[in-house]
Amino acid sequence: MFIRAESKALNEAIAPALCAVSAKNTVAVLECLYLNAEDGKLTVIGYDNSKGMKTSCDADIIESGCILVKGMKFAGIIKMMPQGEITIATDERNNVSISSGKTKFEIAGMSGDIFPALPELVSEKGITLSQAFLKKMISQTIFSYAQTDIKPVYMGILFEFKDSELRVCSCDGYRISFCKAPFSSGESLTERFIVPGKTLTELQKLLKDDDTPVNIELTRRHIVFSFNGLFFFSRLMEGEFLDYENSFQKVFKTYITVDISELIDSIERAGLIIDDKMKTAIKFIIYGDVLQIKTATETGKIDEEITAEVEGEDLTIGFNHRYIIEALKGAQISGDDKIVMSLNTPFSGMVITPVDHEDYKYMILPVRM
Amino acid sequence: MFIRAESKALNEAIAPALCAVSAKNTVAVLECLYLNAEDGKLTVIGYDNSKGMKTSCDADIIESGCILVKGMKFAGIIKMMPQGEITIATDERNNVSISSGKTKFEIAGMSGDIFPALPELVSEKGITLSQAFLKKMISQTIFSYAQTDIKPVYMGILFEFKDSELRVCSCDGYRISFCKAPFSSGESLTERFIVPGKTLTELQKLLKDDDTPVNIELTRRHIVFSFNGLFFFSRLMEGEFLDYENSFQKVFKTYITVDISELIDSIERAGLIIDDKMKTAIKFIIYGDVLQIKTATETGKIDEEITAEVEGEDLTIGFNHRYIIEALKGAQISGDDKIVMSLNTPFSGMVITPVDHEDYKYMILPVRM
Repeated sequence: MFIRAESKALNEAIAPALCAVSAKNTVAVLECLYLNAEDGKLTVIGYDNSKGMKTSCDADIIESGCILVKGMKFAGIIKMMPQGEITIATDERNNVSISSGKTKFEIAGMSGDIFPALPELVSEKGITLSQAFLKKMISQTIFSYAQTDIKPVYMGILFEFKDSELRVCSCDGYRISFCKAPFSSGESLTERFIVPGKTLTELQKLLKDDDTPVNIELTRRHIVFSFNGLFFFSRLMEGEFLDYENSFQKVFKTYITVDISELIDSIERAGLIIDDKMKTAIKFIIYGDVLQIKTATETGKIDEEITAEVEGEDLTIGFNHRYIIEALKGAQISGDDKIVMSLNTPFSGMVITPVDHEDYKYMILPVRM
Repeated sequence: MFIRAESKALNEAIAPALCAVSAKNTVAVLECLYLNAEDGKLTVIGYDNSKGMKTSCDADIIESGCILVKGMKFAGIIKMMPQGEITIATDERNNVSISSGKTKFEIAGMSGDIFPALPELVSEKGITLSQAFLKKMISQTIFSYAQTDIKPVYMGILFEFKDSELRVCSCDGYRISFCKAPFSSGESLTERFIVPGKTLTELQKLLKDDDTPVNIELTRRHIVFSFNGLFFFSRLMEGEFLDYENSFQKVFKTYITVDISELIDSIERAGLIIDDKMKTAIKFIIYGDVLQIKTATETGKIDEEITAEVEGEDLTIGFNHRYIIEALKGAQISGDDKIVMSLNTPFSGMVITPVDHEDYKYMILPVRM
């Protein structure tokens, strides 16, 4: 391989490809970017057997070929090269020389032939969304997928097209995040698929907050997101996902409306005295038109009151403070200043919804006090 | 103790006092801030037996008294309290309650009586400098004081008033940083004192980049910096400091003038392939009108050239790349774009000076290649 390309174009192709590369892995290939030069293009691929990113940039191909390079190291070098034209050349021992002007690096590469074969991505059906739309729905659910594989399918996030809506749901055994938005594609699409949470965490960073389109293609085992010239794919997860519609409580005895920012400030203060290891709960004491928040730990005590509109019965109930803050920030994305918390007993889940939007719904189980 | 004070004033008094508090220490008192309420003021003191900070703010003293509170925790609470008036009250068991509006914290404190006595600070002589002036001189020397106590006095930085100049010098056995500036006080001051590097690291963060004054008072064992209503003191160090004037080489065979930014970029690129544990040297190869920079490690090789004005003999010599970068950044503070590196043999120190300023001088020993 022997190519020349502009540093800016190279950087723009390499940076997103890193999202599918392991920074540190016992399998050396998974730390690598695959570079392939042919037909006037340099293609850059990161792939960790689960998700992959393919990008490309224009290049002057003097000799076509492919090579594997340590992803982080290579990206660091390209980023710090002087601006302008960069030459990348490999020799028969897979040494990679990267030069520009009077600067010349030489690093060890590996034969491109040992890079794992990418999955065949023959699209069966596709849809198009705006980036901002998809990003909002990921942001409202990304924090509550399961981090452990006690039930592996919950390490993914459910996407469901149903009744002219796109619905997205994640759950980790303690809470459920759900959001929905009107969506109709040309064809009547009734699809349900589960995308790994880690894939969506990376995707979220790459999406822009604007109306530029993301094309989503589904194959039998994979999903492919194409946008801004990027081609990001991931395996889908298999398994029976939660029946979320029947998991949200529907009968409540207490409704309480509060200002989101005020409640976040208050819970963050309580967090100051909560030791993350002990996971002491914060106590909500609801009476009259007041939400009282109390916590006592070895470090100290906090006691404060927030004005609230309360409808129904008085109640005392405990929660994990981080789970509440994440829910409130999810609700804020809908654009409301206030939320309604719907409660039943100290042993049943609380449902949080923005006061004026029905597009977001969160259920959280209480903690025994 | 029972006081009321404005949250803004409290925060402004507490934040700088933390610079003399240990975040984590086996001696609990050293993690504490001492609060003392009397005569319409709340005084806040952090003191770690070596350096101390005393600040104060106006407060409405309902009952005078003193208390010790965990510094980081207390500062975190005050920072997150709602804006406005904060009440701080202690009880006979040294519980500290902090409240504002409907928010109330309670944390454990300790009796103020066990706080170590502050040193007596009877000033013997004093001078006044501008904050920007002092900050610049600290910035040009702070990076090269010794981090280990093989020779304890080098863990301090020398300040010397001599011949109507202030001279500042630090050294760690591998390099010497020196800067000077014209300075004349009313009285003829011929003082020489050594301030712990750690004290100056904290002081540097607190100093502003403007002409507001810093008063420096010297006692027999201590130095006191007063500025912006802060009162920051530190013990002085004792011992024989380096005879820096005779430590800088004076005879050179090679002078090389290069652009500072270009050289920093080049050395930072070389740093990409240097493993911090191995500390591989970068090689300077000086010939003709070129500075060639080469490094080879397990990770790879770099080879680049910088255009230079070279006067004298060709030379090949090796250095620790971090030490060179710190020197170049020190030289940049003087405002020049170019530096002169003066060299002799591969076994003698290189001296770096800004091309148009004589106020900064740095010597670095070579590394065997």
